[in-house]
Amino acid sequence: MHVNDDRRLARIGMPEAVFCEPKSPAQLDGIVADLLPGGRPTLFTRLTPERFAALSSASQAQLVYDADSSTATLHGCLPAAASCTIGIVVAGTSDLLVAREAAATLDFSGVPHAMFVDVGVAGLWRLEERLDEIRACDIVIAVAGMDAALMTVLGGLIGAPLIGVPTSVGYGVAEGGTVALGSALASCAQGVAVVNIDNGFGAACAAMRIINQFGERSS
Amino acid sequence: MHVNDDRRLARIGMPEAVFCEPKSPAQLDGIVADLLPGGRPTLFTRLTPERFAALSSASQAQLVYDADSSTATLHGCLPAAASCTIGIVVAGTSDLLVAREAAATLDFSGVPHAMFVDVGVAGLWRLEERLDEIRACDIVIAVAGMDAALMTVLGGLIGAPLIGVPTSVGYGVAEGGTVALGSALASCAQGVAVVNIDNGFGAACAAMRIINQFGERSS
Amino acid sequence: MHVNDDRRLARIGMPEAVFCEPKSPAQLDGIVADLLPGGRPTLFTRLTPERFAALSSASQAQLVYDADSSTATLHGCLPAAASCTIGIVVAGTSDLLVAREAAATLDFSGVPHAMFVDVGVAGLWRLEERLDEIRACDIVIAVAGMDAALMTVLGGLIGAPLIGVPTSVGYGVAEGGTVALGSALASCAQGVAVVNIDNGFGAACAAMRIINQFGERSS
Amino acid sequence: MHVNDDRRLARIGMPEAVFCEPKSPAQLDGIVADLLPGGRPTLFTRLTPERFAALSSASQAQLVYDADSSTATLHGCLPAAASCTIGIVVAGTSDLLVAREAAATLDFSGVPHAMFVDVGVAGLWRLEERLDEIRACDIVIAVAGMDAALMTVLGGLIGAPLIGVPTSVGYGVAEGGTVALGSALASCAQGVAVVNIDNGFGAACAAMRIINQFGERSS
Amino acid sequence: MHVNDDRRLARIGMPEAVFCEPKSPAQLDGIVADLLPGGRPTLFTRLTPERFAALSSASQAQLVYDADSSTATLHGCLPAAASCTIGIVVAGTSDLLVAREAAATLDFSGVPHAMFVDVGVAGLWRLEERLDEIRACDIVIAVAGMDAALMTVLGGLIGAPLIGVPTSVGYGVAEGGTVALGSALASCAQGVAVVNIDNGFGAACAAMRIINQFGERSS
Amino acid sequence: MHVNDDRRLARIGMPEAVFCEPKSPAQLDGIVADLLPGGRPTLFTRLTPERFAALSSASQAQLVYDADSSTATLHGCLPAAASCTIGIVVAGTSDLLVAREAAATLDFSGVPHAMFVDVGVAGLWRLEERLDEIRACDIVIAVAGMDAALMTVLGGLIGAPLIGVPTSVGYGVAEGGTVALGSALASCAQGVAVVNIDNGFGAACAAMRIINQFGERSS
Amino acid sequence: MHVNDDRRLARIGMPEAVFCEPKSPAQLDGIVADLLPGGRPTLFTRLTPERFAALSSASQAQLVYDADSSTATLHGCLPAAASCTIGIVVAGTSDLLVAREAAATLDFSGVPHAMFVDVGVAGLWRLEERLDEIRACDIVIAVAGMDAALMTVLGGLIGAPLIGVPTSVGYGVAEGGTVALGSALASCAQGVAVVNIDNGFGAACAAMRIINQFGERSS
Amino acid sequence: MHVNDDRRLARIGMPEAVFCEPKSPAQLDGIVADLLPGGRPTLFTRLTPERFAALSSASQAQLVYDADSSTATLHGCLPAAASCTIGIVVAGTSDLLVAREAAATLDFSGVPHAMFVDVGVAGLWRLEERLDEIRACDIVIAVAGMDAALMTVLGGLIGAPLIGVPTSVGYGVAEGGTVALGSALASCAQGVAVVNIDNGFGAACAAMRIINQFGERSS
Repeated sequence: MHVNDDRRLARIGMPEAVFCEPKSPAQLDGIVADLLPGGRPTLFTRLTPERFAALSSASQAQLVYDADSSTATLHGCLPAAASCTIGIVVAGTSDLLVAREAAATLDFSGVPHAMFVDVGVAGLWRLEERLDEIRACDIVIAVAGMDAALMTVLGGLIGAPLIGVPTSVGYGVAEGGTVALGSALASCAQGVAVVNIDNGFGAACAAMRIINQFGERSS
Repeated sequence: MHVNDDRRLARIGMPEAVFCEPKSPAQLDGIVADLLPGGRPTLFTRLTPERFAALSSASQAQLVYDADSSTATLHGCLPAAASCTIGIVVAGTSDLLVAREAAATLDFSGVPHAMFVDVGVAGLWRLEERLDEIRACDIVIAVAGMDAALMTVLGGLIGAPLIGVPTSVGYGVAEGGTVALGSALASCAQGVAVVNIDNGFGAACAAMRIINQFGERSS
Repeated sequence: MHVNDDRRLARIGMPEAVFCEPKSPAQLDGIVADLLPGGRPTLFTRLTPERFAALSSASQAQLVYDADSSTATLHGCLPAAASCTIGIVVAGTSDLLVAREAAATLDFSGVPHAMFVDVGVAGLWRLEERLDEIRACDIVIAVAGMDAALMTVLGGLIGAPLIGVPTSVGYGVAEGGTVALGSALASCAQGVAVVNIDNGFGAACAAMRIINQFGERSS
Repeated sequence: MHVNDDRRLARIGMPEAVFCEPKSPAQLDGIVADLLPGGRPTLFTRLTPERFAALSSASQAQLVYDADSSTATLHGCLPAAASCTIGIVVAGTSDLLVAREAAATLDFSGVPHAMFVDVGVAGLWRLEERLDEIRACDIVIAVAGMDAALMTVLGGLIGAPLIGVPTSVGYGVAEGGTVALGSALASCAQGVAVVNIDNGFGAACAAMRIINQFGERSS
Repeated sequence: MHVNDDRRLARIGMPEAVFCEPKSPAQLDGIVADLLPGGRPTLFTRLTPERFAALSSASQAQLVYDADSSTATLHGCLPAAASCTIGIVVAGTSDLLVAREAAATLDFSGVPHAMFVDVGVAGLWRLEERLDEIRACDIVIAVAGMDAALMTVLGGLIGAPLIGVPTSVGYGVAEGGTVALGSALASCAQGVAVVNIDNGFGAACAAMRIINQFGERSS
Repeated sequence: MHVNDDRRLARIGMPEAVFCEPKSPAQLDGIVADLLPGGRPTLFTRLTPERFAALSSASQAQLVYDADSSTATLHGCLPAAASCTIGIVVAGTSDLLVAREAAATLDFSGVPHAMFVDVGVAGLWRLEERLDEIRACDIVIAVAGMDAALMTVLGGLIGAPLIGVPTSVGYGVAEGGTVALGSALASCAQGVAVVNIDNGFGAACAAMRIINQFGERSS
Repeated sequence: MHVNDDRRLARIGMPEAVFCEPKSPAQLDGIVADLLPGGRPTLFTRLTPERFAALSSASQAQLVYDADSSTATLHGCLPAAASCTIGIVVAGTSDLLVAREAAATLDFSGVPHAMFVDVGVAGLWRLEERLDEIRACDIVIAVAGMDAALMTVLGGLIGAPLIGVPTSVGYGVAEGGTVALGSALASCAQGVAVVNIDNGFGAACAAMRIINQFGERSS
Repeated sequence: MHVNDDRRLARIGMPEAVFCEPKSPAQLDGIVADLLPGGRPTLFTRLTPERFAALSSASQAQLVYDADSSTATLHGCLPAAASCTIGIVVAGTSDLLVAREAAATLDFSGVPHAMFVDVGVAGLWRLEERLDEIRACDIVIAVAGMDAALMTVLGGLIGAPLIGVPTSVGYGVAEGGTVALGSALASCAQGVAVVNIDNGFGAACAAMRIINQFGERSS
């Protein structure tokens, strides 16, 4: 087996996923072929248009590809799993690819979500205009690069679980996202939980751990 | 006001807390004096025995100090707030100070918790022996330094929300905790959410965001 | 001559200053002795209480020491130089030492200033309550550690010259101030100018360059 | 809205700008289309010739492109705004792209400027020959990579506001510009204010904050 | 001589190897021509398909190329040298290139080996299913990127010599492999020996030092 | 249990060891008390004279302390376990503490060893004079800080298993040992295996893995 | 003037040089055109074959290009300037490009030199065979990447001025050359002077400073 | 032998030196005792007053200690060796300890030198006033921390061999001296050779290599 284990969903409720970036086209074609008979829904992440185009036509025919999030699915998505709503709050247009990976992961997993774009705190009024909508979400994923100040401001304004995704957007000291990551980890707001730079998939999984555990609760 | 704002609890449900490490004894004495009339429960973190001993005797008399977690409380704790249980899983004895800061924060906030110590995965049987107990927890905080491999193994074994706290335990490349932090962020397990190095307080706050949103509160 | 050159004030209008941190008590005593006959006002920075206490009693007698800012002056201060007001906006109590170094430098140089403390953006309402006062300042110095999100939020709310001073407050990834520095440099707000970590003196000097060039000086 | 907010100019006097580097051609085309009806002058930065060539011909037709600075404008520039002159002092030919981004931003904003090229201090006489002209400027932006020694020498010779832009020019330890950035921040000259590596746009904005506050505007 | 010295095998029993990555095609062609008359078996490492394709057809004709490991051999391999078995334990498909470089080096040197793929510890059951086979190996090479937690878990489960090869697989903090390297060096398991990131060749050589000294050689 | 697990020796043949550095005196006293009834030989590492002096007199009385290696033993050492000899090659006097930790670990484990001091390769003749003795060893541990050039030179001269221990000796770029670590990992010599900075204990354990698997044990 | 200043040779005896890497083809064409009338010999460094091919045919016609060192000359070389011999000692084939930049700079400046290739100290006998020749040189430039152990061994064997050039050859921790740089700076050998990574030009200039001051010049 | 080898002077003309920082008082006492019978002049470096005070009174009685440079000599100094003069150019008072280590090493070795203090280039006129004297020196050692801009300016003004010693003076980004080191290595001035941070001893040794090879020695 070349993929994240098929027993994972049964054991801990996390989605089947294939991390495509470091794999060769031949390896990915092999994985698609291996997964084909099983029929289980599987998500492919970090599958850029260039990488998708390098796959065999057989693989391409089996996958449902979404260039905006660099993801693909095989054998469809999982059934609707929650009545919670995840808010994905995005600092700027440049962070959209990462935000859409989170959204695609939630879509694949049957979890509803709403996206709030261009609400970076250098123009605070933009965030404030959307704040009521954001407060209506059960869990919030904040996606920001550069100084990632969004996470601190948001963390001080909402009480919901808040998962920060620093992005690699930027240049100079911001290049690669380590400033955004450090800023998110050192946030003065209390209880911001952080995932790896650009890891929209991981943020969605962290949200799903909450939903899996608490989602169908009696409250 | 010199402290985390008194309107925070009302607004987003996070505990009042004073981060003591960078403040001078005179500054801390001033904060205690400011907080005294209000009567609101307040938590003091990273108050080492040396720092506590440097406070005025008036301040010392007002605070309930716990050297094991380097925390203190003023005006008692918050009432019991949840029937959820937070599991605090600790790789080794050396990580206990950080784990106890998380526990003290939960105690202050009225949230039940259980601690599992010395279950580092270099001796996998130790974790396996406690696994059923850990799986019974609603949320898990994993505390580990060095290679922080505990977080990945645990993340593959449980489905609950998992918050990783890397610690600064170790020497050579491990000194300061950046390897543990990197390992937690790069974890192959899905959906591990991470807080700053040694930030037991922050991990507890991240857990309380989940409880506040999803758990049944008694108040 | 062991000090910043006595021709500096005449040439570029910057204050005489002695950076004390890396100098031995004997070196500092020698500098005080050298400066004594000249009678020119001189500022001593990063002169901690321990360092001040290690000076000779002759030196101590000549200096006017201020422990809160770890600065001292010799031969008094410069005459009032400007009708501008510099606002010093401080994220938290822990950043006060650095903020006070900026204030002491401005005091020494005869420049009016106002300080706004505990307005970190994790509690946005605190900043908002002071915003009108801050907007009334001609130049703003923002002092913050950790995620330094204050600089971005402030930069989006005011149009005045904004000089950011990242501080070394914090632990884990925030220790030493590199995250705050990176965050200030990568700020999404436009035109934030940054000085070295903890360099309150430098921020005041940057403000004085503006005043010297544009403000009306009394002399 | 995908761009820096249209209310920004009104609020804090900073120019409308779109940071193009991390955005896809499709995203940029969408932004141009969104901005077209409004008619407000807008600046596009870090739009390399390759990126510009990848835009739709509709977008290309609307933009006035300047390859030397990798910038473009939509709906023209702002009216002349100041009688101040900004000096842009450039260490070497290799730093010109960054210097021209600063110049293009000032052009867009209606601020006069003069450029001084190839005055790196490894050949001190080159700087000395231009010093009188530089001293006649109201504000100075210094652009240098490698050791960025220009900023320190200049800072000791002029009293005007001095904004340092480290560049990513160089190889080995100098690659990426962190040495130049560190050198600028650690400058022995007093009051040098620094912006991110290669951030000519930000340096111009910092200068405009000064002009907006202190310079006489014609509008 | 442009290659690792021909006297090396005689002196210390290490294989002849040419590290191809930093050499130009012309340099590599020259090395092949130099080695041709000698007739000694030689290994070429980090010879990517692109680099191999850039060699002269004369060079290509002399080399036996293996794209899966980016290695080639000239003049065949060394005779069977040991009855020991080296286990190569691989966390995921993405680590295969590095693992295969180790395997190709062992093949070239006449040392038997077995490979265990996709046994990363985020799915612990996968490792447990292969544990008896792994325990039957005389020496174990563990190949893992990201958090490299495999090395710690394995180190606690087996007593054989364990050589860890961190890989550069991953993104964000994991990019380049420094987190995996740090995690391997800081492993809580005792006696894990580590080689450079992606250095499958070096791990095989470290194993051969053990075999040369302790294993029974047939020659 | 607060210590490395008592089942470790039985399972993988590694010594019982307590890493003392991050533990408080109270924690260490508790560990000694816990271990006392069991009677199993246990090694304590990184127990500096200051830390040892801070233990209770009861603990001190039970431990056999060796200040030269900052180690102690409880319940004696293990019986002689091997007829192999481990050579410990030490670049300079300053590296002795680390080398002695390796030696103390081998002593504790009943493994013979010989130490070769002051053979750094800046004076190559010193190494050459001892080379025959070093070549007579079955396994070699090389201990060096600064440039760690010893490991490369030694790796080219001997064929035995070679385990490099970089040390934190040095200042400037060498401070903390990362240069020595990098140099060891990037060694041009083939098959040098490396452990964490200053980790003499780990190097001895790596050697014992080889002996346990290949050496003839007396028990 | 876009180039290193024409008064440099007269003032401090250093060669005219144009650092091509960060300059666009148009900028380089402009520099060639500017230099053409003057007739002074000028060296162009880091002019890769790709960059050279991108120049105008007019520029190409004027330059004498050497692909092996990525350098070119305009208006020939300087007359023979010294009877000293510079030895260029090179660890491996992969370091040749950098070594040849040093050689080309010396050629341009009329200084004799001899090159010693493939004498890395992982095969110590290779260096020893050439040692008498190397000792006959007046100044030695050592070029090495990876662990740069050559510099330390050489520094202990010869008394001549020794200039170390770390190279960016290698991968993993060695990538970019920082390990080689650190190793050279932390060398246990006394008096090794170091230049920037890959800076063969700078090493030659450092040697020429010695020759200019101490060697007998023919002109 | 615990010290730099006694055959070093005979072989390569470098001084006997003991690097004291990482050695315990007992180790240093042992070294003094070992060296006593031999009668060869030996230099002890980085022997802080605290370390010197911790030596046995027997050792203290044998050594001639100089607190200003943290050095000591045993058995006197070497005879006058050169008629060359080394200029030691020092940016500020804070760099004096390092500069004096260089001077003490030259004193020990019988080489004349002159020191130029407080000539940092933030006040360019200070350097210019001493330039004629500096130009009269045969070799120049430049000592500077912070931005180390002195080295670049000096490198452009003099043609003599120039050895840069970055110092660890400074705070924030300058702390530890890496900015000064990077700035020295990336200097735009040609042929600046660099030694490790704070390594005054090494700079003197680099100068002596030149003198030994080119200067006229009296012996």
